[in-house]
Amino acid sequence: MTDTPYLAVDLARLDRNLQAVAELARNAHVDLRPHAKTHKTAELARRQIDSGAVGLTVATIGEAEAFAAAGFGDLFIAYPLWVTAHKGARLRALADRVSLRLAVDSVEGAVRLAAELSGAEVLVEVDSGQHRTGVAPESAGEVAAAAQSAGLKVVGVFTFPGHGYGPGHARRDAAAQEIAALSSAAEQLRDRGIEPRVRSGGSTPTIEFADSGVLTEIRPGVYPFYDAQQVELGVCGFDDVALTAVSTVVRRDGRRVVLDAGSKIIGADRPAWASGHGRILDEPAARIVALSEHHAVVEYPDEYVPSLGSTVRVVPNHVCTAVNLVDELVVGGGAGEGGEGEVATWRVVARGANS
Amino acid sequence: MTDTPYLAVDLARLDRNLQAVAELARNAHVDLRPHAKTHKTAELARRQIDSGAVGLTVATIGEAEAFAAAGFGDLFIAYPLWVTAHKGARLRALADRVSLRLAVDSVEGAVRLAAELSGAEVLVEVDSGQHRTGVAPESAGEVAAAAQSAGLKVVGVFTFPGHGYGPGHARRDAAAQEIAALSSAAEQLRDRGIEPRVRSGGSTPTIEFADSGVLTEIRPGVYPFYDAQQVELGVCGFDDVALTAVSTVVRRDGRRVVLDAGSKIIGADRPAWASGHGRILDEPAARIVALSEHHAVVEYPDEYVPSLGSTVRVVPNHVCTAVNLVDELVVGGGAGEGGEGEVATWRVVARGANS
Repeated sequence: MTDTPYLAVDLARLDRNLQAVAELARNAHVDLRPHAKTHKTAELARRQIDSGAVGLTVATIGEAEAFAAAGFGDLFIAYPLWVTAHKGARLRALADRVSLRLAVDSVEGAVRLAAELSGAEVLVEVDSGQHRTGVAPESAGEVAAAAQSAGLKVVGVFTFPGHGYGPGHARRDAAAQEIAALSSAAEQLRDRGIEPRVRSGGSTPTIEFADSGVLTEIRPGVYPFYDAQQVELGVCGFDDVALTAVSTVVRRDGRRVVLDAGSKIIGADRPAWASGHGRILDEPAARIVALSEHHAVVEYPDEYVPSLGSTVRVVPNHVCTAVNLVDELVVGGGAGEGGEGEVATWRVVARGANS
Repeated sequence: MTDTPYLAVDLARLDRNLQAVAELARNAHVDLRPHAKTHKTAELARRQIDSGAVGLTVATIGEAEAFAAAGFGDLFIAYPLWVTAHKGARLRALADRVSLRLAVDSVEGAVRLAAELSGAEVLVEVDSGQHRTGVAPESAGEVAAAAQSAGLKVVGVFTFPGHGYGPGHARRDAAAQEIAALSSAAEQLRDRGIEPRVRSGGSTPTIEFADSGVLTEIRPGVYPFYDAQQVELGVCGFDDVALTAVSTVVRRDGRRVVLDAGSKIIGADRPAWASGHGRILDEPAARIVALSEHHAVVEYPDEYVPSLGSTVRVVPNHVCTAVNLVDELVVGGGAGEGGEGEVATWRVVARGANS
């Protein structure tokens, strides 16, 4: 018996999602290197590798350390680290035990990395329109050449089309910009005599447009579980959502109820285009109108309103930040409300691995 | 040497904040029972007790268990729990070792609690305008009488004036509504022959209005550290902020920089009235214009822009959710930029204690 609130995984849906994206990658002739920051669990990563992933993507050295310790041997830290002496020592220890790829997006960053880990395999990060990290495509050759001169092994280019998280045509447009940016950056590298054999892109909202001839690899993160953002973007349906916060109704007034699932278990992420602070799995018409640390205020528009003390399954807006809030996931067999009972708990081994 | 990003505490500022609020409570003749969900650390709770707090407030049974294990003997779980058999067993184990107060806001909830923990001390939660949990003041007597009939020991009423988190007159107005609601609810209890000797309110934005004759106790949480919300509400200045996320500039383009502090270390909380996703301690004019899990995009309007690889201190919007994202806080002596070096690390003992 697990006390509410807790995060529950529907294993049947999870495995169906893993198979579907593995098949998408096979059909598009691209490698699948899923982003493990979403789930941070060894058991799920193992299922991804077993269903055909070539390795894992992570965001921090700490995540890489956690997955290396769990036995995963092919890791890409998709972040332009600023490498201090201490981070350099951690990276060398990692490179001794796994096949490690790193990211650069500046000449200065590349020189520092090379000083700490000469010969490291790197990809140049390219900005395809999100305007976060990554160089403009036309500067990719310069960074690649500098990285190579500094002693790094440049194997390709990558981008994150994060601006595909938006309504309307955002996903399709971002996917097209991703292809254009990687294509242009790849040309830049070739002009410098560097073969960009890895051209890596793709997030969950854009991978359906992955069949381009330019991409060689995709790095979706959210797809094992999906979340309320993906439902509202049209990437998946409620029937695909494999992770929920199981919560209890602690107060009821008319059509308004309060659940014991707050931002400390579902996360506070709320993009401007989202309909609320998350969704209710079994009542798509309900809206979470207010969220605090330990309370979600939910309005039910129809006749059905759950009773005081009943159990409600909340779909977080952003599953990556929800999982990072718990020590373990409660895994059930799936098959509808209540599932087939608890079959396992998976430890969130890279929880809070921020650096 | 701690790798960025990490949460750092300025001990000199922290102790100054603790003293100031302890003095405010003494001058207002109210008990101080700070909310420990903010810091979740035993060391900080000890400093609160040592400076005059009568006990601690917590939000979950798990938090109460963590603080009981750390030696704190007077705890109020300020949440209308729906008590299952398993939660009942946990509460009985707690009540055996500490002085425990609980919350009720419905007849049904009180009956369930009484069935699991007869004789428990409870306060009736009253809604003073936030419209989350808590009964309307005019229903407080009915819930109190039912709780007493069921076998609970009703010692008073409490409210959380969370609607005081707003610009303009929101703080002052919420404080006035808090006093009115507690006063009205207290009358309701007296009408039923129940003496409401505890009348508990107060959050960090409203405690400056606490000197009312109605309140007997305040429960502020955020004041040891403060945060960007409190700065923007006018509750404190940047010079009072005692917790920051120490981060590194990983990219710079003109006046725009990207820091390695994302929502997984500063939290994603962003009320509509906030100026961004957090603030920069040493550059009040800078704005965090975008936040993702491991990146903060910051725009600097003036001449000064930090260089690639330099260190920047980010003030989270909401410190309670930031602390919950890390295993430990790095505590420094304070006294300006860089502090006087690390003096301790405090473990976040109740991190993720959601149930």
